[in-house]
Amino acid sequence: MIKVAVNGFSVIGRRIADAVAAQPDMKLVGVSKVKADYKAARAIEKGYNLFSLDDKAAKSFADAGMKITGTVREMIPQADIVLDASPEDSGPENKKLYEEFGKKAVFQGGEEDSTAGLSFVAQCNFEKAQGRQYVRVVSCNSTALCRVLHSLDETFGVSKARVVIARRAADPDEVTKGPIDSVVLDPVSIPSHHGPDVNTVLPNFPVISMAIKVPTTHMHLHSLIVSVKDKSVSTQKVIEKFEKTPRLMFVTSKAGFKSTSHIIDMARDLGRPRNDVYESVVWKDSVKVIDDEVYFFMAVHQEAIVTPENIDAIRALMRTHERSESMAITDRTLGIRS
Amino acid sequence: MIKVAVNGFSVIGRRIADAVAAQPDMKLVGVSKVKADYKAARAIEKGYNLFSLDDKAAKSFADAGMKITGTVREMIPQADIVLDASPEDSGPENKKLYEEFGKKAVFQGGEEDSTAGLSFVAQCNFEKAQGRQYVRVVSCNSTALCRVLHSLDETFGVSKARVVIARRAADPDEVTKGPIDSVVLDPVSIPSHHGPDVNTVLPNFPVISMAIKVPTTHMHLHSLIVSVKDKSVSTQKVIEKFEKTPRLMFVTSKAGFKSTSHIIDMARDLGRPRNDVYESVVWKDSVKVIDDEVYFFMAVHQEAIVTPENIDAIRALMRTHERSESMAITDRTLGIRS
Amino acid sequence: MIKVAVNGFSVIGRRIADAVAAQPDMKLVGVSKVKADYKAARAIEKGYNLFSLDDKAAKSFADAGMKITGTVREMIPQADIVLDASPEDSGPENKKLYEEFGKKAVFQGGEEDSTAGLSFVAQCNFEKAQGRQYVRVVSCNSTALCRVLHSLDETFGVSKARVVIARRAADPDEVTKGPIDSVVLDPVSIPSHHGPDVNTVLPNFPVISMAIKVPTTHMHLHSLIVSVKDKSVSTQKVIEKFEKTPRLMFVTSKAGFKSTSHIIDMARDLGRPRNDVYESVVWKDSVKVIDDEVYFFMAVHQEAIVTPENIDAIRALMRTHERSESMAITDRTLGIRS
Amino acid sequence: MIKVAVNGFSVIGRRIADAVAAQPDMKLVGVSKVKADYKAARAIEKGYNLFSLDDKAAKSFADAGMKITGTVREMIPQADIVLDASPEDSGPENKKLYEEFGKKAVFQGGEEDSTAGLSFVAQCNFEKAQGRQYVRVVSCNSTALCRVLHSLDETFGVSKARVVIARRAADPDEVTKGPIDSVVLDPVSIPSHHGPDVNTVLPNFPVISMAIKVPTTHMHLHSLIVSVKDKSVSTQKVIEKFEKTPRLMFVTSKAGFKSTSHIIDMARDLGRPRNDVYESVVWKDSVKVIDDEVYFFMAVHQEAIVTPENIDAIRALMRTHERSESMAITDRTLGIRS
Repeated sequence: MIKVAVNGFSVIGRRIADAVAAQPDMKLVGVSKVKADYKAARAIEKGYNLFSLDDKAAKSFADAGMKITGTVREMIPQADIVLDASPEDSGPENKKLYEEFGKKAVFQGGEEDSTAGLSFVAQCNFEKAQGRQYVRVVSCNSTALCRVLHSLDETFGVSKARVVIARRAADPDEVTKGPIDSVVLDPVSIPSHHGPDVNTVLPNFPVISMAIKVPTTHMHLHSLIVSVKDKSVSTQKVIEKFEKTPRLMFVTSKAGFKSTSHIIDMARDLGRPRNDVYESVVWKDSVKVIDDEVYFFMAVHQEAIVTPENIDAIRALMRTHERSESMAITDRTLGIRS
Repeated sequence: MIKVAVNGFSVIGRRIADAVAAQPDMKLVGVSKVKADYKAARAIEKGYNLFSLDDKAAKSFADAGMKITGTVREMIPQADIVLDASPEDSGPENKKLYEEFGKKAVFQGGEEDSTAGLSFVAQCNFEKAQGRQYVRVVSCNSTALCRVLHSLDETFGVSKARVVIARRAADPDEVTKGPIDSVVLDPVSIPSHHGPDVNTVLPNFPVISMAIKVPTTHMHLHSLIVSVKDKSVSTQKVIEKFEKTPRLMFVTSKAGFKSTSHIIDMARDLGRPRNDVYESVVWKDSVKVIDDEVYFFMAVHQEAIVTPENIDAIRALMRTHERSESMAITDRTLGIRS
Repeated sequence: MIKVAVNGFSVIGRRIADAVAAQPDMKLVGVSKVKADYKAARAIEKGYNLFSLDDKAAKSFADAGMKITGTVREMIPQADIVLDASPEDSGPENKKLYEEFGKKAVFQGGEEDSTAGLSFVAQCNFEKAQGRQYVRVVSCNSTALCRVLHSLDETFGVSKARVVIARRAADPDEVTKGPIDSVVLDPVSIPSHHGPDVNTVLPNFPVISMAIKVPTTHMHLHSLIVSVKDKSVSTQKVIEKFEKTPRLMFVTSKAGFKSTSHIIDMARDLGRPRNDVYESVVWKDSVKVIDDEVYFFMAVHQEAIVTPENIDAIRALMRTHERSESMAITDRTLGIRS
Repeated sequence: MIKVAVNGFSVIGRRIADAVAAQPDMKLVGVSKVKADYKAARAIEKGYNLFSLDDKAAKSFADAGMKITGTVREMIPQADIVLDASPEDSGPENKKLYEEFGKKAVFQGGEEDSTAGLSFVAQCNFEKAQGRQYVRVVSCNSTALCRVLHSLDETFGVSKARVVIARRAADPDEVTKGPIDSVVLDPVSIPSHHGPDVNTVLPNFPVISMAIKVPTTHMHLHSLIVSVKDKSVSTQKVIEKFEKTPRLMFVTSKAGFKSTSHIIDMARDLGRPRNDVYESVVWKDSVKVIDDEVYFFMAVHQEAIVTPENIDAIRALMRTHERSESMAITDRTLGIRS
């Protein structure tokens, strides 16, 4: 059993803690948290060992009548590996702690590639991560892009990918963030950082991204335009390739999927925890090849898509399974459909 | 085992079908649906018998490769009782069908009170519904209002209740409905229909409602101002009464609940199916008595709050359990917290 | 000619600068600004003297190629009176500057009542402000409430006013503020600060307020429930009183007004600068007296409603006109309808 | 003086009526309307002759106490030319009326190209429209695309244009339209109709469009990726070309423009009627040439951008001015900046 600590218990931390708890080969030694809020209360209800960030946080848990097991410094030694889901840019500081105790760690996409030395998407570069001390799971948008672009490149050879990302501006519970009635260019300059971030996983991959922020909370929506080298490419061939691509779910407008909301509504119907969608979701009837360019729409659940990647990253660093074995276990335990 | 058919499988139908399936004393004989969409596909995956509205609908299911069991006319005879969750105002037409087969039926709040002859909220008038042929579960807003007003009246005697309802303008999957950036007076005239609708359950109860529509999808938000006869009323006494009120959940800002979104986020954390909140949710730290008026904020999950009422309505019509027994079974099977 | 400086050129500053420029008895000596953005460019185009906040800001204007006249310290001495439209809570610091130069000043609702020593709404307490050194125009919501409550009290005697304020969460150009899909209780505790703020203008007025924030940018929407002492009150009498109330505009659903958006759309049609609505807008067909309680809906344009009050405040402090004269000039120059 | 009738007085009709009234060589003979709402009241205040759609509509104006001049059938004969701004798809029916009286007419983008026989954007094909009986001004999105694509093609030769259009889902006063919290694929299939619509003005122009709908009311946002034949193209050259392109306004993030809202806010500051933006708005600092592909963001004010095109279309059909003369008069009277 791999002993896993989850450092940070917000959007990502809550999800990967539950995912770790669901793995047959892992044991969750605890989760860390700063605030004594309803999320902390729920962790305790689930029987997770709750650790406070520091002594000050410990006091607020005590005031709220919540029993904690200790502080983060007491949690880390109990683990074989740490999933770092702390706030963006706190990776370098946390890394010192992991080094002090000689623990392996998985960082998230809010950190720099250089903090971990390798950026990770399971189906793209699992093998490179095997046995390493650190790895970084890339952001939600980059994870989804790597999945589909790597897949198209395998079969058709990508000569240039262009993507326009309409980002959800806030998560459902982030009530202070806007905009309310506006499209924000984020950033105004082109390309956005998403293309270069894909390149941390797929070096030199030719991809240009443009990004806007829109007033929704549910999913990012990618509009892709991908030029390929194989001139025999066709709509049908791309559909066949995507059907074999891991962690890619097809939906159709005929079955009622006309928006990002319908995807989330389906996830609610599926009984997915927190209506999580781990798959890159592609509209099958949007896939279209015109000349040698592949066009399609893809939706990305920003809260959930990196969950399976984090689980696979653990097994890669711990060298307990090969890629296909790890992905199969992860997919089965999370109910991934593809 | 009470054999239950669910006629209509949209917002309410999906939920009460699942709730019926979860009851130890009920058997779901089938659900009816018009469109061969992802909701229908999910019903089949769950093993529900799917019936089409009519022959035309049957053809669309066939075209989509979905196996159905028959049409609505074939479903009704198999049931002891029908939960009618069909579109608003189709109750009178459907009632003819139920009469033809001599079946009991539970209608929803979109129908007129006169269609069923009695409007129902379990904790208010379960006994009146016992043994009846028809009953109508009132709308989400009315259900929540009946719960808290009936409770306050029991202990303090309500002399006048006033409520301003900020309605969520659309359900999460209703993507054609707005407004986007506006507050709509719905209606402009005062009082709105909500007060009179409460009176279908609590006759002559003194309640005046004002209603506006705001651009959110998650919950309704009620602002209540209730004058009571008992001049010894106090904030503490109201809190104590609400703690004993069935299907009322307290939340606090201290635990992180500052908006309707936080309630839904908690429901996702709880693992509730479709993040459903069956309880009337009252902010404990909003409760305030000033002179002889009780003020508080309450959130209402429009998709889910009537689910337990529908289940109890079945047992009332079928006369299989007393109120407290029925509510206890319902609450336990749905995981209701109060 | 009263020489007026406008310190701050954001939401309120832009508007009162234009309003000052439109008065026959006032001269705008200049406006101050921090950022060299499109708003600054527009001020220059209009021929306003632009002053930078300080030397650092002066450099950014130079970098942008914008000609400025000096810094704030050079603007103040040129004025008889300063309209302080600087960011919330900077009033006390700015007041030292005004004291240094012995200038009168009008502060905004973001400051404490104590900074100015008197809070102001023209139709309520113009006379008290006459000849004073400082005065504070209250916030948009308080201004609108004072107008209608003072008016009702004059004729019917208010025994208790209750208001639920659905606040627009951000101004149209504040693109970082949310929520996107949520109703935020702001604050959760009752009463909100709005009632006490009304009391800075109308001491001891019996008013309780509850406030929520909704995802819109256009106007606040007030739901009012006002108990009055005059038992002969009637819907018709209230309508007649409101028709005679200054700066109150009636609209009706019959004429197409069903939302806050329709009010703004009308202001666009009227050719109002920046679609500004200076009036408290009451839906005539929402006014309803039930027993001795007056119910109605009112919309408040948060960006614009204090503009006329600022202009009148200048004349009050400068003792150049009586109330009715000042309000008449202001209303005529701004095109106020009531 | 060209006598112009405006048939329809909603989003477009109101604007082109005001624009006609502002032209030195035109006279507005009247406007037609169905509902006796605040827009009608405003038309009367402005001194426009108001005509009702039919006798039934006439009665509703009489009931509202609004004086009308007659019905549409009485308005048409008084005009030399009709601007048809009636609801989408009513063009063919209306055309019969114009034919009956032998009047020229300008249709809007909601009609089929075939109804008019020629689709129009002033800077692209003014000459083709000269002297014709009918012409169709294309939709807001197509107008903006034609302006920039035609311009790029003139200088660099476009080999393929791709555009992702994030459409505002409703106009500010359309309060029943959504979505509220969703991105809707509209349509799911690729390409959307926008590319072919551009081809009604620029035949065979190689352009592929994808379209999504987002919950905003202010402007459409286009993300453009344009491959050009001239390999010497550069960011600087494109900027220089756009500076010379008619009805194209540059904005920069440095001057505070980071969203569609900031554009509208600037238009409010400019004192534009109804904050109208007639120009295609391009972010100067978004323009980027990578290899031989030109990338940029463009905002389109859906309510206003076709106003100048309608005015020019009148002069083309009436053969009173050459293109450059007409565009110059239109731009001057509307205050267009480019």
